[in-house]
Amino acid sequence: MRPWEEYIRRVEPYVPGEQPQDPYVIKLNTNENPYPPAPGVTRALEKLEGEKLRKYPDPSAAGLVSAIARRYGVNMDQVFVGVGSDDVLAMCFLTFFGGEKPILFPDITYSFYDVWASLFRIPYERRPLNDEFEIVPEDYQGENGGVIFPNPNAPTGKLLPLEAVEEIVRANRDVIVIVDEAYIDFGGVSALPLIDQYDNLLVVQTFSKSRSLAGMRIGFALGNPRLIRYLNDVKYSFNSYTMNQAAIAAGVAALEDQKYFEGTRRQIMVTRERTRESLQKLGFSGPDPAANFLFVTHRDCPAEELFEALKQAGIYVRYFKKPRIDNYLRITIGTNDEMERLIEFLEQYLKNRGGNADGNV
Amino acid sequence: MRPWEEYIRRVEPYVPGEQPQDPYVIKLNTNENPYPPAPGVTRALEKLEGEKLRKYPDPSAAGLVSAIARRYGVNMDQVFVGVGSDDVLAMCFLTFFGGEKPILFPDITYSFYDVWASLFRIPYERRPLNDEFEIVPEDYQGENGGVIFPNPNAPTGKLLPLEAVEEIVRANRDVIVIVDEAYIDFGGVSALPLIDQYDNLLVVQTFSKSRSLAGMRIGFALGNPRLIRYLNDVKYSFNSYTMNQAAIAAGVAALEDQKYFEGTRRQIMVTRERTRESLQKLGFSGPDPAANFLFVTHRDCPAEELFEALKQAGIYVRYFKKPRIDNYLRITIGTNDEMERLIEFLEQYLKNRGGNADGNV
Repeated sequence: MRPWEEYIRRVEPYVPGEQPQDPYVIKLNTNENPYPPAPGVTRALEKLEGEKLRKYPDPSAAGLVSAIARRYGVNMDQVFVGVGSDDVLAMCFLTFFGGEKPILFPDITYSFYDVWASLFRIPYERRPLNDEFEIVPEDYQGENGGVIFPNPNAPTGKLLPLEAVEEIVRANRDVIVIVDEAYIDFGGVSALPLIDQYDNLLVVQTFSKSRSLAGMRIGFALGNPRLIRYLNDVKYSFNSYTMNQAAIAAGVAALEDQKYFEGTRRQIMVTRERTRESLQKLGFSGPDPAANFLFVTHRDCPAEELFEALKQAGIYVRYFKKPRIDNYLRITIGTNDEMERLIEFLEQYLKNRGGNADGNV
Repeated sequence: MRPWEEYIRRVEPYVPGEQPQDPYVIKLNTNENPYPPAPGVTRALEKLEGEKLRKYPDPSAAGLVSAIARRYGVNMDQVFVGVGSDDVLAMCFLTFFGGEKPILFPDITYSFYDVWASLFRIPYERRPLNDEFEIVPEDYQGENGGVIFPNPNAPTGKLLPLEAVEEIVRANRDVIVIVDEAYIDFGGVSALPLIDQYDNLLVVQTFSKSRSLAGMRIGFALGNPRLIRYLNDVKYSFNSYTMNQAAIAAGVAALEDQKYFEGTRRQIMVTRERTRESLQKLGFSGPDPAANFLFVTHRDCPAEELFEALKQAGIYVRYFKKPRIDNYLRITIGTNDEMERLIEFLEQYLKNRGGNADGNV
């Protein structure tokens, strides 16, 4: 070891889902939207002139902040924007979770939370989901340094009703509660209406899923103006200009086309229900889905075996080799065609496997 | 104060230069390049398809990393990319400056260094420049937690010769030395050739100045593969996907057009020399310039007065009300036309002022 290595911050980095470059792969592993963004988005990028690119962007990204404020019916000083919701959440951890008491999040949840806690040396405790993969509000009472959970939860897709969310926020008025609503547009009820009532509540959302803009990295937080000011102070101390001109232009254009947004998110929900029924017929089950993915287990066939078989067939889904969920697959909802090919493969695979198994008896 | 405010990270945020939206303003205050990026850049953005935008970018930004590696004659594992050099530098502070001993940087320097140190609770000491605004290598010897300085320095524009840079790197083999070369392409000599010899050296550059892409936020660090791996581990723990599809495409296109790059950076150096001569005739002086800006003081007229007068006239320059430099202006090199308008205004203003002063005698 070299002497300079002594002071290095060593971390166990988050491992994102694979990004295969093969265009024939059916990619159901990173919860991307199967539809392109609203047509106005590519038009907005085509119009970006060199004169704009040579200049620093507006550090406050006012154009995008104002478009978000209008769309969600809040004031501009209630909106914080960042480079995807990961950037927004990392800034939240850095800004709000600076105490000595542990922050709380579920045992099964977005796998970045413990990574950020470790990176910023924030103590944390995990609270187990119940056997139905539900967050139990009573587990988030008592002294703590803050609370964060996704709703719907990841990777289960399970939705917590708004009353239960409010129960957690109300029980934690002295710390910040962050509701990470990356998947809220696929059938959930947002906690957004609660931000005026609870000044300790921050709602985080993203353009990566329901607005088909994972490639442009846009996330945002909504909360009371004091929380937003604290977040901006830290953001400006980190990097004044995080949102590039293309992200600002694309974000504004995506928000302008509400009809397209409604159409694609509804289509994904329709495809989700159809896929779920087909999977049930094949022997799969899982929690009620409220996101753009299904979280399923098979009555006979181990998830890891299915994961590998699907991958061999060029169908990428996500498998987490972690306690309690290591017999589940997380399957992103793609187009109808993609889901039909998934179902066809599974049908065939399980049939052959059953046949082989019979043969072995 | 609300109880949740107790745990909030309070910071004194960096204040970036103003970004006036008035198109008639002559903007010489944030060291942007007066020329648009290479024509291939806007073409690359026009070609970005919805199919690409809906998907997460490659987290390693391999396309951009490989283009940088080719251009600078290094291996891909010697390149780290980020959202502007501010993001790269913030990640460096977080990754490498984790010790108890103070890190060292000049008293007059890029004003983000102490902001990052405060944000990440890193102890630091400032080492004064000499009276010629030069970094004194002997001041960076002895025990410390790391060293960082810009070369050319900001906001002075003063270049440290490569031998002096090497002296500092050699005297600090047990800690990381970061040379922040945001302005190196305007006449300086890069420390890049030293990275193979010194495994404690990291060279940071940006696309914001010499490649006219401030609006796209692209910065990079070059160093030995172990340093780059540590940086990437922290980056992936913060936000796996920081470089959006547009930034990756624009960065690659900018690197492809070396002829355009050479042409515009030379033009800026020619304009700089011409402007410097005109300013000298008007009674201005300052350190030899090696960046895309001049750092000047006038023999009679206070800098703050000139700053305000210029602003009234729609010409924005930068003024820092800080010890030792509060009688200097930092003036970005714009087009020849913009610099002529600056000189005309100053000539007239100083003449009127002299006339008024005479009248008061």
